[in-house]
Amino acid sequence: MPHETRIRVRYSETDQMGVAYHANYLVWMEVGRVEYCRAAGLRYKELEETDGLYLVVVEANCRYHAPARYDDELLIRTSLTEAHPRKLRFEYEIRCAGSGRKLASGHTVHVFCNRSLQPVKLPERRRAVFGMSG
Amino acid sequence: MPHETRIRVRYSETDQMGVAYHANYLVWMEVGRVEYCRAAGLRYKELEETDGLYLVVVEANCRYHAPARYDDELLIRTSLTEAHPRKLRFEYEIRCAGSGRKLASGHTVHVFCNRSLQPVKLPERRRAVFGMSG
Amino acid sequence: MPHETRIRVRYSETDQMGVAYHANYLVWMEVGRVEYCRAAGLRYKELEETDGLYLVVVEANCRYHAPARYDDELLIRTSLTEAHPRKLRFEYEIRCAGSGRKLASGHTVHVFCNRSLQPVKLPERRRAVFGMSG
Amino acid sequence: MPHETRIRVRYSETDQMGVAYHANYLVWMEVGRVEYCRAAGLRYKELEETDGLYLVVVEANCRYHAPARYDDELLIRTSLTEAHPRKLRFEYEIRCAGSGRKLASGHTVHVFCNRSLQPVKLPERRRAVFGMSG
Repeated sequence: MPHETRIRVRYSETDQMGVAYHANYLVWMEVGRVEYCRAAGLRYKELEETDGLYLVVVEANCRYHAPARYDDELLIRTSLTEAHPRKLRFEYEIRCAGSGRKLASGHTVHVFCNRSLQPVKLPERRRAVFGMSG
Repeated sequence: MPHETRIRVRYSETDQMGVAYHANYLVWMEVGRVEYCRAAGLRYKELEETDGLYLVVVEANCRYHAPARYDDELLIRTSLTEAHPRKLRFEYEIRCAGSGRKLASGHTVHVFCNRSLQPVKLPERRRAVFGMSG
Repeated sequence: MPHETRIRVRYSETDQMGVAYHANYLVWMEVGRVEYCRAAGLRYKELEETDGLYLVVVEANCRYHAPARYDDELLIRTSLTEAHPRKLRFEYEIRCAGSGRKLASGHTVHVFCNRSLQPVKLPERRRAVFGMSG
Repeated sequence: MPHETRIRVRYSETDQMGVAYHANYLVWMEVGRVEYCRAAGLRYKELEETDGLYLVVVEANCRYHAPARYDDELLIRTSLTEAHPRKLRFEYEIRCAGSGRKLASGHTVHVFCNRSLQPVKLPERRRAVFGMSG
């Protein structure tokens, strides 16, 4: 099930083209991902602090369809499209909340790592959050 | 011919994982792209100011191989891999200047737009910079 | 009357000290300022688009009392402490919404400018928003 | 003795006013500070890694005289104006390298902290770098 969250484009996120700077979409995807996890019952912060686990980005991709503008309210729709004990894949769709227009779509791939940033497997007790069996 | 430029990872670019935050790689790619253009004889700023042309990002992609860390000097290698009067594609390789280790690779796709961000063709007199015939 | 708004610290806003990077507090103050204006009946975006007026920062100051941390919800309390047709001064207090602890306090000073960034006076019909008589 | 370093304004650092966004000046001051330390013989990174010491910002201030623009080369002049084993104060002047025009001036105040971000004294062997006797 996709999860939806809303953010508003900040002035600091615009550039002199008069639109939101393209790297910010990756930041907004992260907001979407964190809220996806929270809605699924996991505060990502806790994963780091309690389990010493980090969700490291190994790939990020974004296609820009139309520009997001200052003060626009955006709808970020986040789906978990692959979930393995070592790896997750999220997909995102970013729309203008006002017009409903699709602004961008993208995905990120992540691996679970320990504090030394070495790949590890997600412990069994954390797997249900991501819909993994056992 | 690829072009190489160097930057140093800033403290502001790190996150609490102790490495550079992943969205910054897109910013660094932009630095690489701008310096590629400068080396080819075009100051990108001039394209905007004189020609009223904007190089709008329509796709960005990055694969992260190893983390960049605070104060690392990075080598950004930028290549122009597709050049049409309406569209450019750049590829990037980011290495740690000290160790030579490859940290990330990626690409961006751009369309030329006018001040209203409508797609346009690059004027003929600007095409040589990007190796386009006439 | 002060205005309160809430934001949540993003992962991208942390640094390798494990806390929010100090320059982000200026971004949050801007969010507070924009929401202050909206609550007073002015969408700042409209000031730029309709009136061709820009609220340019001429001074910014922040004192950091305690660190904001990732995923903390913050309470930004914004007050307008000086309002002249040429100049505004805002004060801010940033607290952790959970603990109520004061994290930072600061102020910014702004001048109204036209599209060429030359100082101008705020038109009379816009002054009531900022509590200026006529 | 002040130390000078140069940076170039990135596209990502501009906003829709067509100038550099004001919070970036604090990032540039940090670049100036780090290069000041390097020139004085201390790689700041080493202070964190070897000594477990962090230079935490407790105050930041900036006055903006004229806007920095995209692709401008900036000259950051950094001076250490107070140095105690518990506290440092840096002052900065930011100029346009091309025109020599002063764009901004400011200062930051810092305290030395340990890994838990509790204030500590700088060890004696590190004091000479900052011109402190013993």
